[in-house]
Amino acid sequence: MVNADRALESHETACLLNVGEKPARVQITLFFADRDPVGPYEIEVDARRTLHMRFNDLAEPEAVPRDTSYASVIESDVPIIVQHTRLDSRAAEISLLSTMAFPAE
Amino acid sequence: MVNADRALESHETACLLNVGEKPARVQITLFFADRDPVGPYEIEVDARRTLHMRFNDLAEPEAVPRDTSYASVIESDVPIIVQHTRLDSRAAEISLLSTMAFPAE
Amino acid sequence: MVNADRALESHETACLLNVGEKPARVQITLFFADRDPVGPYEIEVDARRTLHMRFNDLAEPEAVPRDTSYASVIESDVPIIVQHTRLDSRAAEISLLSTMAFPAE
Amino acid sequence: MVNADRALESHETACLLNVGEKPARVQITLFFADRDPVGPYEIEVDARRTLHMRFNDLAEPEAVPRDTSYASVIESDVPIIVQHTRLDSRAAEISLLSTMAFPAE
Repeated sequence: MVNADRALESHETACLLNVGEKPARVQITLFFADRDPVGPYEIEVDARRTLHMRFNDLAEPEAVPRDTSYASVIESDVPIIVQHTRLDSRAAEISLLSTMAFPAE
Repeated sequence: MVNADRALESHETACLLNVGEKPARVQITLFFADRDPVGPYEIEVDARRTLHMRFNDLAEPEAVPRDTSYASVIESDVPIIVQHTRLDSRAAEISLLSTMAFPAE
Repeated sequence: MVNADRALESHETACLLNVGEKPARVQITLFFADRDPVGPYEIEVDARRTLHMRFNDLAEPEAVPRDTSYASVIESDVPIIVQHTRLDSRAAEISLLSTMAFPAE
Repeated sequence: MVNADRALESHETACLLNVGEKPARVQITLFFADRDPVGPYEIEVDARRTLHMRFNDLAEPEAVPRDTSYASVIESDVPIIVQHTRLDSRAAEISLLSTMAFPAE
């Protein structure tokens, strides 16, 4: 399963929800306009838990570049739900994810 | 059928729409970052009616915690449509639901 | 085909897009919290055209009530795309549609 | 595959993401309320890259009209992901795409 979305601005966050009974191993890859993708960043979402991830906190394999547009692809070994959010003290914008199931086969 | 979405901030509401001819029995479960899920909260949406639900009004089995991020999974025994909204006097943000139909079989 | 969305506030608009070669006959039904649905309101979207519809302009079979929450179901005899928008001079909110294809059979 | 969305206001942008190994040849067609569609505008998104496209930069076959509502249909020869965004210095609105896969066959 692949959840894919894009982050156009800094201070991006993603809320990951794992409603299942098994932990989700999640891999995040960042795509850019003029360089090769970076990743995967690896995080885990416990069973029946949410995780509020800040992109700027991603450190390995390298810090997320600031002031650079990027897109992110979020892959999980179990189905999860991802909501991409940009926090703003005045007005928050919420981007929805186009979730595409890629048959594992 | 499962409609799943996440509420990251207080003052969240959900607008539920039941366009069918039968009342919808709806169960809401809240998921958290560091504790077990809470629920189900049970509400009913009459046939051919909308219901504007405020998460902070949910009381049983326990009040929705304030200042705590949570995600919600909304399940209904008949198909409904759910729109998740955060009301703000200056600018409202609307989050879309990833609606996943789980075959009842 | 049914496109369904909800309008929670006044000054709602919907942008309808018909990319096909045939005009789309569109029927809009409004749902409320405590009264029977109203409609259908009928509009037509020409082939290969967009139509910017203001809900408050709907007049037949009755004016859209102000200061009343409502949900709308938009049905078309040919596939169309609907974007629901609330115009605000400071910050616009955009709600996405959950589009459900009901087999015509 | 067809990604379709609508642009109701000026200063619209679209972020295109190609996670595949082959360049994506993308064609954009604009639809209007009272005139024939214009296009296709042609752009290419390199393999494993993002492209941040400003609608107002589209020049061929003709400049995108200002102060005119339009809808866009974005077609690609390989699957891509499109996020439609309106940039605003105070609050950005994000519209989601209704992505419809039209079997090529």
